[in-house]
Amino acid sequence: MRFHLLPSGRSHLLRRLFFCLSFLLAATAADAQELRSPDGNFLARFVLQPGGIPGYTLLHKNRPVINLSKLGFDLQGERRSLRDSFVVRNVTTATFDETWTPVWGETRTVRNHYNEMAVHLEQTSSGRLLTVRFRLFDDGLGFRYEFPQQPNLGHFILKEERTEFAMTGDHTAYWIPGDYDTQEYDYTISKLSEIRGLIAKSITANLSQTPFSPTGVQTSLLLKTADGLFINLHEAALINYSCMHLNLNDSTMVFESWLTPDAKGNKGMLQAPSVTPWRTIMASDDARRILASKMIYNLNEPSKIKDVSWIKPVKYMGVWWEMITGKSEWSYTNLPAVELGKTDFAAAKPHGRHGANTANVKRYIDFAAKHGFDAVLVEGWNVGWEDWFGHFKDYVFDFVTPYPDFDVKGIQEYARSKGVKMIMHHESSSSVRNYERWMDTAYRFMKEHGYDAVKSGYVGSILPIGENHYSQWMINHYQYAIEQAAKYRIMVNAHEAVRPTGIARTWPNLIGNESARGTEYQAFGGSKPNHVTLLPFMRLQGGPMDYTPGIFEMDISKLNPKNKSWVNSTIANQLALYVTLYSPLQMAADLPENYERFMDAFQFIKDVAVDWDDSRYLEAEPGQYITVARKAKGTGRWFVGNVNGETPRTSTVALDFLEPGKKYTATIYADGKDAHYKNNPQSYTIRTVKVTSKSKLKQLSAPGGGFAISIVEAN
Amino acid sequence: MRFHLLPSGRSHLLRRLFFCLSFLLAATAADAQELRSPDGNFLARFVLQPGGIPGYTLLHKNRPVINLSKLGFDLQGERRSLRDSFVVRNVTTATFDETWTPVWGETRTVRNHYNEMAVHLEQTSSGRLLTVRFRLFDDGLGFRYEFPQQPNLGHFILKEERTEFAMTGDHTAYWIPGDYDTQEYDYTISKLSEIRGLIAKSITANLSQTPFSPTGVQTSLLLKTADGLFINLHEAALINYSCMHLNLNDSTMVFESWLTPDAKGNKGMLQAPSVTPWRTIMASDDARRILASKMIYNLNEPSKIKDVSWIKPVKYMGVWWEMITGKSEWSYTNLPAVELGKTDFAAAKPHGRHGANTANVKRYIDFAAKHGFDAVLVEGWNVGWEDWFGHFKDYVFDFVTPYPDFDVKGIQEYARSKGVKMIMHHESSSSVRNYERWMDTAYRFMKEHGYDAVKSGYVGSILPIGENHYSQWMINHYQYAIEQAAKYRIMVNAHEAVRPTGIARTWPNLIGNESARGTEYQAFGGSKPNHVTLLPFMRLQGGPMDYTPGIFEMDISKLNPKNKSWVNSTIANQLALYVTLYSPLQMAADLPENYERFMDAFQFIKDVAVDWDDSRYLEAEPGQYITVARKAKGTGRWFVGNVNGETPRTSTVALDFLEPGKKYTATIYADGKDAHYKNNPQSYTIRTVKVTSKSKLKQLSAPGGGFAISIVEAN
Repeated sequence: MRFHLLPSGRSHLLRRLFFCLSFLLAATAADAQELRSPDGNFLARFVLQPGGIPGYTLLHKNRPVINLSKLGFDLQGERRSLRDSFVVRNVTTATFDETWTPVWGETRTVRNHYNEMAVHLEQTSSGRLLTVRFRLFDDGLGFRYEFPQQPNLGHFILKEERTEFAMTGDHTAYWIPGDYDTQEYDYTISKLSEIRGLIAKSITANLSQTPFSPTGVQTSLLLKTADGLFINLHEAALINYSCMHLNLNDSTMVFESWLTPDAKGNKGMLQAPSVTPWRTIMASDDARRILASKMIYNLNEPSKIKDVSWIKPVKYMGVWWEMITGKSEWSYTNLPAVELGKTDFAAAKPHGRHGANTANVKRYIDFAAKHGFDAVLVEGWNVGWEDWFGHFKDYVFDFVTPYPDFDVKGIQEYARSKGVKMIMHHESSSSVRNYERWMDTAYRFMKEHGYDAVKSGYVGSILPIGENHYSQWMINHYQYAIEQAAKYRIMVNAHEAVRPTGIARTWPNLIGNESARGTEYQAFGGSKPNHVTLLPFMRLQGGPMDYTPGIFEMDISKLNPKNKSWVNSTIANQLALYVTLYSPLQMAADLPENYERFMDAFQFIKDVAVDWDDSRYLEAEPGQYITVARKAKGTGRWFVGNVNGETPRTSTVALDFLEPGKKYTATIYADGKDAHYKNNPQSYTIRTVKVTSKSKLKQLSAPGGGFAISIVEAN
Repeated sequence: MRFHLLPSGRSHLLRRLFFCLSFLLAATAADAQELRSPDGNFLARFVLQPGGIPGYTLLHKNRPVINLSKLGFDLQGERRSLRDSFVVRNVTTATFDETWTPVWGETRTVRNHYNEMAVHLEQTSSGRLLTVRFRLFDDGLGFRYEFPQQPNLGHFILKEERTEFAMTGDHTAYWIPGDYDTQEYDYTISKLSEIRGLIAKSITANLSQTPFSPTGVQTSLLLKTADGLFINLHEAALINYSCMHLNLNDSTMVFESWLTPDAKGNKGMLQAPSVTPWRTIMASDDARRILASKMIYNLNEPSKIKDVSWIKPVKYMGVWWEMITGKSEWSYTNLPAVELGKTDFAAAKPHGRHGANTANVKRYIDFAAKHGFDAVLVEGWNVGWEDWFGHFKDYVFDFVTPYPDFDVKGIQEYARSKGVKMIMHHESSSSVRNYERWMDTAYRFMKEHGYDAVKSGYVGSILPIGENHYSQWMINHYQYAIEQAAKYRIMVNAHEAVRPTGIARTWPNLIGNESARGTEYQAFGGSKPNHVTLLPFMRLQGGPMDYTPGIFEMDISKLNPKNKSWVNSTIANQLALYVTLYSPLQMAADLPENYERFMDAFQFIKDVAVDWDDSRYLEAEPGQYITVARKAKGTGRWFVGNVNGETPRTSTVALDFLEPGKKYTATIYADGKDAHYKNNPQSYTIRTVKVTSKSKLKQLSAPGGGFAISIVEAN
């Protein structure tokens, strides 16, 4: 069908009239183009440069954080530039202060306090309207673009967003390479000027990866200035827009936004009215404030789920690490290729290494029940794992058909009888349409079988070919999966999806993401021992990570003789992760038989909370150490965690967060004196001491080590 | 998540053993590489050329139809060529003869009679296996490639299918330009050698179009040799594969297959075991045999729908032509852009030209009921038409929310009270994921509101960007839509989808497709007057077309003064289309008020059947004329239709298909003597004559004219 008739033109007299009035007001508003944070420490300035080029600067305690940086877009098509010829039509300001209660989180309540300035621009050459809205918090700046409803801008396609972040010097950066398809890289710490030289080495192999520039990096990006200011660049509320990367001009030290393209290189399809995600700039002299910031969440909308009673933090185990290490397999047969609905798995010869068999699953359920875990995840339960990746296979999984040796109903009844929930696994293999086709059926199947949470996965390159993991089309998909799940009261833990941007405030059923280099890489050759001292600064801005800690056996060849990988961590470090890497979803990832060898250490994993009334960041230096104390929700019990980088270090922990006058018993799980991630990771000590709010604990952490403390009021 | 462990190798000893045995048999089978059609007129030869290059030839009555032509593929990746180094391992032959009963069709039963030869090849350089299966019918050849399950070919990506169709000369071709996104072109008749010079002119404007080669054409392609042999090239059973185009080497007159690519240029993702669609070559000295052939259907699988009682031919009217002509609009408001779920249509100002308003729909229902139509289609009933195309808008329609002036329940009750069914309209705007997301909900909505059939649409370029209307990913979508509809007992009439390839045998709920230049183009500037003498030769091979005939007012400016288009057809020609363009779905597309001016002519549309016990192609010359007689299913009533090209012509119609000895009354609707599509299209005569099986009728058809005859047994 073809159409040659378009709707006729429309008059917008009323709107035009409104803007004439706005213009009259603009003169009085012009001097209001500065904005201060509530505490007065930050000063953001909107600047209209000659030629009508919009820009901004950001200062912290009178020191520049962001030098004069341009704002704007290039559009596809005829009237391309949205970067110049602007005039300020109006400026509005506001102040906002609320305290909201997260469904789960590091603190019982969150304060959302900012001053706001909206600069309403008109591009005189085109009559197009653009608003830049700034929100300045005590921890930093968020700003976004808004496209009001207007006659001269309806639907449009982004060629590129041209937002600059002009650095004030050759800062130290903690970065991973820019990539359209994965964040699963080790962090590199270097000067900005060194990125170009280091980037090739930083791009380690991945099943799906698309780097785009020799100076392209991902957000959230952490920076440290020569005079000790920490800066974090990221985004908030990434909805119906492409994921933003940053591309560095390493002559000028200016980062520019670099959106993820679709198959033809377009960077986004928008229509007015709409808003972009927030571009965020946190800054502090104190690294701990970066960790504690809730600015990203605050820039997201309040929860759209009214009844949140079904959303609950989860501590779980899983039939997973044994497949990751190669001890067992996801697949059931050695068939080189299978066709769902045609391959007769019941008649096929099993290879005998299938992890998700009923007996093995029941073993995990028994262990989980015995030690008080909430749930058990099982991967590889459903047919299709024989040829599930690397083939662009459209109909790769159906998410409802188990292998013959996985008894869905029997397992569910067994788990229920033991008081354990089952966690569903939906690996899409990035065959996105197939997953969406099956999604409702799959979610219904979950509810019918008592599953309340799903771990979803997007391994491999996206099908349809040409889309990327972080393009708008995919951002849209992840969001759809979350919102559909909410309809079924299902919690989502999405792996290989885009890194979070605080959307869990709005959709608190998004209880986890991977979106970084997780523990699995310890079985794929190992991660840097200081990796976990960096994740909270970058990856955890925006939302929790399903890092899957708790590995006690660091020598992977003990599980699978063919796998020579080594876990670069001590047992004490592994325990500390339950505190330092905040998540409402925490796994004890190792095998039951490995925990049974270290039941005294395992006690900490059993005891540690997954939801908190309060969190105190006690010490922090990215790449070196993080020490956190958290107060368990409702119980008054405290847990402290410390993770340490390559250098042995002694922490001094003041317990002044404890209630004065009360007596507590602290159980300290620490590295043994001779512990080392490399050659002696299983050396640990456990000691119990009496403490009060006046106590100070000194504790040594080994290279790649750490400590974990459980503090309970003494009887 | 990243995986470094692949399933270990497998042994396939049994399979190897089997092929060793086959090899021993090959010697005896080698002389069986010729295949004759059941009537002996066709001879197909499989030829293994030096270097192990597979090929074939086809002869008809000892005349070459296809000269020696190569067979094979190029694959993506390392081991690319599947075109040479083959040996024949085994040849098997078979004969097949069945008569099946279609759910709807031109004849009560269809005979499926062929001789078959399967040539089992092994590529010695790679150990890969490939079978070429030939089926030779009395009307032509079908062959396909089959990839058996095998150790050396699992999943693979096609770079290109390299099937040749070597013409024996510079034939006359009836062609439309090759295009990945549309078939909505007028046919060009030229020598093969002239295609290159004419192609630019042949590519008329369309909302989504992607031509790919100066000598690329689409199938089905009709050819006529210098000595009068008609040849039709097409494909059958296009399932999970890219649509095939043909690219002509106009030095050698060899066509080569040219598949539709994905966003990165891949031509298909396959896995063994699997089969390609059939490549079909019909040939006959008699053009009528090309029209009557059921070879394409015969190459498809029998119906997969067991209970077909709900699939029924439909004669319908629609609130449609008034929008196509611009007399009214699909949209409800003049809003430049809308957001489903946010735009408040109830509060918006309607522009007053919305066609799908309740009162207007009831007017169509009244007219349809009064004149015995089965159903009424309504387009533009659901919100979103304000900005529905050209914007790559993802969430463009929800398929369940009516405009405020369309009373879904009231209309449904009114239609039911009048004995008329409503036909649903699902315009996807080619936002394919959005349609799939809504599909189940939309189908359920249909059934809840008594809709049994849907007209679906794919206007504009495909979203996600990079996919084409005819790429494998989209072929997969159309198939999904059909199969899902079948689950809900819904009949599908898909517009802008891929041209049909006989799939309606397998899925008889696919009762119509557009997939060619339909009547709407008569309101977009007009089609060639001989267009309808060509469609049955090309477009109708593979499945019926929802051509939407029955236009009585040829001067479109009478409906919309701004639209100066002219319908290049006479009223008698329009009537004849109900017979000449076979479809189980026939629309009377014009407005009730236009029919009311010509109620005597309209009587034919009221009377004509839509399902048949028999069909006789009486005269045919592509581009010039087609005359068909059809016997209505179950009633014994006959209808004859003639459509004529540019030149006035007198048909002589022998009524020897009538039952001997019986007396009949024939009502002849013919062009007036002064009729002409250009300046006098509404001139027609109606006369009644008594006839028997011995009668011969002589009847003049005007330029762009025709005649329609209704024959009923005399009392």
